[in-house]
Amino acid sequence: MTKDPLETNPGNYRLAFENDRVRVLEYTDTPGHVTTEHSHPDSVMITASTFRRRLSSTGKDAEVELPSGAARWVPAQEHSGENIGETDTHAFFVELKEPAPVPPGHRENRLGPAES
Amino acid sequence: MTKDPLETNPGNYRLAFENDRVRVLEYTDTPGHVTTEHSHPDSVMITASTFRRRLSSTGKDAEVELPSGAARWVPAQEHSGENIGETDTHAFFVELKEPAPVPPGHRENRLGPAES
Repeated sequence: MTKDPLETNPGNYRLAFENDRVRVLEYTDTPGHVTTEHSHPDSVMITASTFRRRLSSTGKDAEVELPSGAARWVPAQEHSGENIGETDTHAFFVELKEPAPVPPGHRENRLGPAES
Repeated sequence: MTKDPLETNPGNYRLAFENDRVRVLEYTDTPGHVTTEHSHPDSVMITASTFRRRLSSTGKDAEVELPSGAARWVPAQEHSGENIGETDTHAFFVELKEPAPVPPGHRENRLGPAES
């Protein structure tokens, strides 16, 4: 089953821009809203409102409270989110389409077949 | 001379976030302000205010008018910008640190020494 947020939560995520390097999603919701579980690749989140959310992933919860105009790194992950505040959520996700760079030393030390 | 906007226009550009894949800059100015020429790598711009600007690059000008909450691709470029509107500019630039992917066929057809 797809975990693409445009498909899991089409009422909340809107495609704002896309090319071969990035995809930009705009997210909006209202207090009390809970998203279906979905996935994010490595992304930058830019907030456009002040909000408070509970993020749930593999049985663990975390609460986040952010002001408008914040920039946060979202490492690739699957989660669901709940607006537990009294304000609408409004945020942009700049998704990176390229795979993360090979960590230094990875090629030299890797196990398994040689890369073609 | 550096064209890094954090150095050319330190009163307008602020480092909002940085890791090995991206650098996020926050830009602010007031009507009438003109930036020193600077460079952007491939970036996504997210606007946080409505603004009108004149961008100048290699002798050519272009006027842009954007609402708050817009996402725009900024291909790698050098330019200077002037706030020609009546509102402050507020925007975020998500800069991509990785080089653009090699275009299909580029390796096979490239001139010059073999890649190591």
